[in-house]
Amino acid sequence: MLTIWTYDWVPNGPRGYVRDLRLRWACEEAQFAYEVRSMSFDERGLEHFARQPFGQVPFLEDDGLTLFESGACLLHLACKSDKLMPGDLAGEAEVLEWTIAALNSIEMVSVPLMVVGRSSQGGQRLAAWLGMRLTQLETVIESREWIAAGRFTVADILLADVLRQTKAMTGLPGDYPAIEAYIERVCAWPAFVKAHADQLAHFAAGDKARFRQRR
Amino acid sequence: MLTIWTYDWVPNGPRGYVRDLRLRWACEEAQFAYEVRSMSFDERGLEHFARQPFGQVPFLEDDGLTLFESGACLLHLACKSDKLMPGDLAGEAEVLEWTIAALNSIEMVSVPLMVVGRSSQGGQRLAAWLGMRLTQLETVIESREWIAAGRFTVADILLADVLRQTKAMTGLPGDYPAIEAYIERVCAWPAFVKAHADQLAHFAAGDKARFRQRR
Repeated sequence: MLTIWTYDWVPNGPRGYVRDLRLRWACEEAQFAYEVRSMSFDERGLEHFARQPFGQVPFLEDDGLTLFESGACLLHLACKSDKLMPGDLAGEAEVLEWTIAALNSIEMVSVPLMVVGRSSQGGQRLAAWLGMRLTQLETVIESREWIAAGRFTVADILLADVLRQTKAMTGLPGDYPAIEAYIERVCAWPAFVKAHADQLAHFAAGDKARFRQRR
Repeated sequence: MLTIWTYDWVPNGPRGYVRDLRLRWACEEAQFAYEVRSMSFDERGLEHFARQPFGQVPFLEDDGLTLFESGACLLHLACKSDKLMPGDLAGEAEVLEWTIAALNSIEMVSVPLMVVGRSSQGGQRLAAWLGMRLTQLETVIESREWIAAGRFTVADILLADVLRQTKAMTGLPGDYPAIEAYIERVCAWPAFVKAHADQLAHFAAGDKARFRQRR
C-alpha cells in the first residue's frame, strides 16, 4: 500500500495545484492501491521537516521507504508500472529527459515567475525567458500527441501539470496553441479528473474540520 | 563508448560551469570510457535544436541513445554504476529525492536569481527565497558528510555543482558554514578536479581554433 502525504488544509489559491495531485494522478493511472494521509498545515513543525527538509508536501511512503520531491516520487512510481514508463531503454531515456526538462527547463522558470510576479523588472525578464522556452516547446509539441516515447507516460503528468499551473497562476506569456491543446488533451484523462476532484474534496473536508474546531 | 556533447567554445564567464562538467565528473567517478565532442557555439542551428529542444548543452550519446538535460543524463549514468548509485531500494530512493531536490528546490531558485540579478526587487525576493532554502539545507548538511545514502553518490555531483555555481555567480545569501565545507569536500575529489581542468582545457583549445580561423 502506498501512502501519499499532504496537508490537511490549504487556502483556496493553491487548491487543485498542490503537488500531491501529481502522485494521486500517477497512482490512478497505474491503478496502484494508495491512501492519502494528512499533516497539519497550521502546525508544520520539526516532524514535518524531518520528512521533507524544505517543509513542503507531498511525500510518499512505499513499504517502509519515504521519498520527498514530487518529481522523485513520480520517477519512483514510474519504475513500478509500464503504464507510466515504457520498459525499453530508448523509451525510458525519453521519459527521463522530458521529466527532468519539465522540472528544470520549464518549472525552473515558471515557479520563480509566480513568486516574483510579472509586473516587476525581474518578473519581466523571467516572463521573456519563459516565453522563449515555451516557444521552443511549442515546436516540439506541434508534432506530438504525447511528450515522450510516442505514448502517455509519467513525463506527461509532470509537464502537463507544470504548464496547467503556469497558465492558471501567471498566464502563458504568448500564444501557444499546441501547448494549450496539449494541456487540454492530457488533463482530459479520467485519472487526472479523479485526482483533481479528490484533492478538492480533501481540502473541502479540511474546511469543515477547521470550522468545527473553531466553534 | 559514451559521448558527451558540448560547445566548441564559450565566453570566459561560464567556463568551469558549463553542465558538461557534471557528465564528465560522473564518467570519471564511475571510470566509464567516454569521449567529448563539440558543436559550434556560433552556429547553433536546427540540428542542435533537434537534439536539445532548448538549444543548450550538454547531451549524451550512449550506444545509439541520445539524452538531454544534465539531470537526466546523470540519472541514466547512475543506473549503470554502483559508484554513482547504491543498489538497495532505500539508497536509490534517497539518491533520487536529493538529485531532484538539487534541481527543483535549490537550482530552481538559484539560476533565476542569476538571470534576474540581486539588485532588483524581484532579485531580492529570489535571494530571500534562496536564503530560506539554504538555511533548511544547512541543517541537513550539518550532520552529514554526503547528502544521500551515507556515501558519495550522483546526488553529491549535482548538489555540489549547483551550490558551487550559486556561490560563484551570485554569492550565497548568508553564512552557511556546513554548506561551504560540503562544497569544498565534494569538489576536492580527484574526479571533479580532473573534469574541471578538462573543461577549461577544452574551451582554451576552442580559443586557439577561433584565433586561427580569424587570421
